[in-house]
Amino acid sequence: MKRRALSLSLALLLAAPAVAGAVEFTPQELARATALQKKLVTLDSHLDTPANFERADFDILAAHPGNLLSQVDYPRMVQGALDGGFWAVYTGQGDRSEKAHLDDRDDGLQRLSVIHQLLAAHPDTFEEATTPADAARIKAEGKRIVYISMENASPLVADPSLLSFYYKQGLRLMSTAHFLNNEFADSATDPKGPEWHGLSPAGKALVQQAQKLGIVIDQSHASDDVFDQLIAMSPVPILLSHSGARAVHDHPRNIDDARLKVLAAHGGVIQMNSYSGYLIDNGASPERKAAEGALMGKYGDWEHMKVADGAKLTADLKALDAKYPVRKATLDDFLAHFDHTLKLIGPEHVGIGMDWDGGGGVAGMEDVSDLPKITAWLLRKGYTEQQIADIWGGNVLRVMQQAQDWAASQAH
Amino acid sequence: MKRRALSLSLALLLAAPAVAGAVEFTPQELARATALQKKLVTLDSHLDTPANFERADFDILAAHPGNLLSQVDYPRMVQGALDGGFWAVYTGQGDRSEKAHLDDRDDGLQRLSVIHQLLAAHPDTFEEATTPADAARIKAEGKRIVYISMENASPLVADPSLLSFYYKQGLRLMSTAHFLNNEFADSATDPKGPEWHGLSPAGKALVQQAQKLGIVIDQSHASDDVFDQLIAMSPVPILLSHSGARAVHDHPRNIDDARLKVLAAHGGVIQMNSYSGYLIDNGASPERKAAEGALMGKYGDWEHMKVADGAKLTADLKALDAKYPVRKATLDDFLAHFDHTLKLIGPEHVGIGMDWDGGGGVAGMEDVSDLPKITAWLLRKGYTEQQIADIWGGNVLRVMQQAQDWAASQAH
Repeated sequence: MKRRALSLSLALLLAAPAVAGAVEFTPQELARATALQKKLVTLDSHLDTPANFERADFDILAAHPGNLLSQVDYPRMVQGALDGGFWAVYTGQGDRSEKAHLDDRDDGLQRLSVIHQLLAAHPDTFEEATTPADAARIKAEGKRIVYISMENASPLVADPSLLSFYYKQGLRLMSTAHFLNNEFADSATDPKGPEWHGLSPAGKALVQQAQKLGIVIDQSHASDDVFDQLIAMSPVPILLSHSGARAVHDHPRNIDDARLKVLAAHGGVIQMNSYSGYLIDNGASPERKAAEGALMGKYGDWEHMKVADGAKLTADLKALDAKYPVRKATLDDFLAHFDHTLKLIGPEHVGIGMDWDGGGGVAGMEDVSDLPKITAWLLRKGYTEQQIADIWGGNVLRVMQQAQDWAASQAH
Repeated sequence: MKRRALSLSLALLLAAPAVAGAVEFTPQELARATALQKKLVTLDSHLDTPANFERADFDILAAHPGNLLSQVDYPRMVQGALDGGFWAVYTGQGDRSEKAHLDDRDDGLQRLSVIHQLLAAHPDTFEEATTPADAARIKAEGKRIVYISMENASPLVADPSLLSFYYKQGLRLMSTAHFLNNEFADSATDPKGPEWHGLSPAGKALVQQAQKLGIVIDQSHASDDVFDQLIAMSPVPILLSHSGARAVHDHPRNIDDARLKVLAAHGGVIQMNSYSGYLIDNGASPERKAAEGALMGKYGDWEHMKVADGAKLTADLKALDAKYPVRKATLDDFLAHFDHTLKLIGPEHVGIGMDWDGGGGVAGMEDVSDLPKITAWLLRKGYTEQQIADIWGGNVLRVMQQAQDWAASQAH
């Protein structure tokens, strides 16, 4: 339960009052941005949307505006000119007992299955992609692109050899840890501090196994030591699927400038995150946190909430915001991280991974329908269409191609 | 590969010339039988149809008459008044090396996933059932019934604890072994003879684990020693999901009269099989077998054949039959097994499990569209509607209810 409570607590931040960021775009700028995105392959590298596939009343073909449980669906992907991305097999982790590891394993397989069920249910609208070339082909066929990723390798603790099954089922991007340390790696945010001082021996073996299969390693959520070890051991570039710049907001989930330069020198890419709690300090009071806890009790288990409950919870949180205000990150805050990172390592090493349906979203960009604001901003800043294409997908696909090419070379 | 070649070799028997059995029914008898089946819940306890879900060109909403790869699809289920049944996660097994066990594990999970993909793709036509009560409810909603079973526990050899995942995903019936001995149990047909003289220690543990979850144990394909041990150790009745009577044809895959009586005394049920090679001796010559082998080489891997190839193979086999005739079991042969068993242990202990899409089918009953012939025969023989209802589903659901009730009682 703890993991779910934590997820909820963070996601609640979404519900703060929607104060628009200072940045504004004209209808002309947004129209031009949308038109450009329609030409490009636009991918977000961290979509937590598969969590919604398990909600009985979720319909990906319907729009769910103003519901904190849903920021990604087909109508809003069309509106925001988002072609797809990496749809995550996310699992938390239990108490790291043997039973918890088996539950994590089952939860991961279940999440993987519901992604394939979504694909089976909507074959004319979504298609699974496993190679970089698939993205443009699927877009040309008028469908949305579904790469499969794993956030937190906890489903593999019980039996790391299950990675072969995930690979056969399409897994092409994988992170080691999430909020807390696990058997593979230290998290950036475990209150207990480092356990392995990076990757465990099992974690190193898992990374090597993944890279031999051509699976890209995702560093987001893992500790700095894990980053350093991944850079040292990886024959291919790594990805940060949803992270921010520590120079802009000093939070362990963000990455410092020195490491960003190492990442880029190693050919890697950071995909910019829009998770409010990592962009800024929201200044939540103890009273606010207690009130959030009480609200949680009312709605129960986050993972089994219905989408309809999400709408009610959204309303309840608006009332909470009136009583216990918190600062919510704005589009300006997101752009500050984006701008800093782009200037530091260049548009060949930066992309988009907003953590939609996983706690992402800022005032002024509440869901995927607003994504053309990113392109409008890039155009205003003078980035070329090629650079914008790289940011929206070219960079992450380049990293994937390198990972797959290296794996193929090893198989010979 | 060996396992696939073996499957193909047996399935080829399907393609023998369609000589009608001597038994014939009037249109009136068939109409009455069809009308009765529409009133009842009609279940087949062994559908290998999920193998077809992995064929790129298989469409369960289309009819595939005269194609040996497909005997079950929605139009023919409607025609034959079959409401559904147990859809099998079937896997063969490799060379029992560690790698083969991992491959079997992956194959099982994949087969389980495609069953759920079918359900997701056709939510208005098929629905998953997990309790006995689900069957009538789903039928009343105008949908076909999908219970999930496992034929051959080889996917669990690498890690028997995966059974918990299968259970969560709907598994409610499971056999231990298939054509060959495995780590859990001896097969009835392994040329090497007994290895464990029944269940292995791991097999006994697996059976106990399954029964604690309320999963029914399926004895079909396992050796007589396994039968005897299951009877001795099981607190609930067991099922033979697709088997015949050894008194009618002396084949190790069939069960002798003494054991049939024990099965019934223990509350169990035998579901009658229509697999030609177990109903009769088909008298295939060595030349015929060699010619089949050559034909196999032409079509390659059975599991990855397209449905379209199945149509071509069916035609090629007709040519083969002309050159190297084999005897194919007829509906009369099937009914001989059925009649014997009904007379021996009564209609409360007999049901239907034809092995469709797994090698089942006889001349005069080539696919599920012909199933009303079974009911017409039962009516002609004077069985009551209640007895026919038991045979078509009541018996297997009773066994499932007992298994689930016992599991629930143990959980308290």
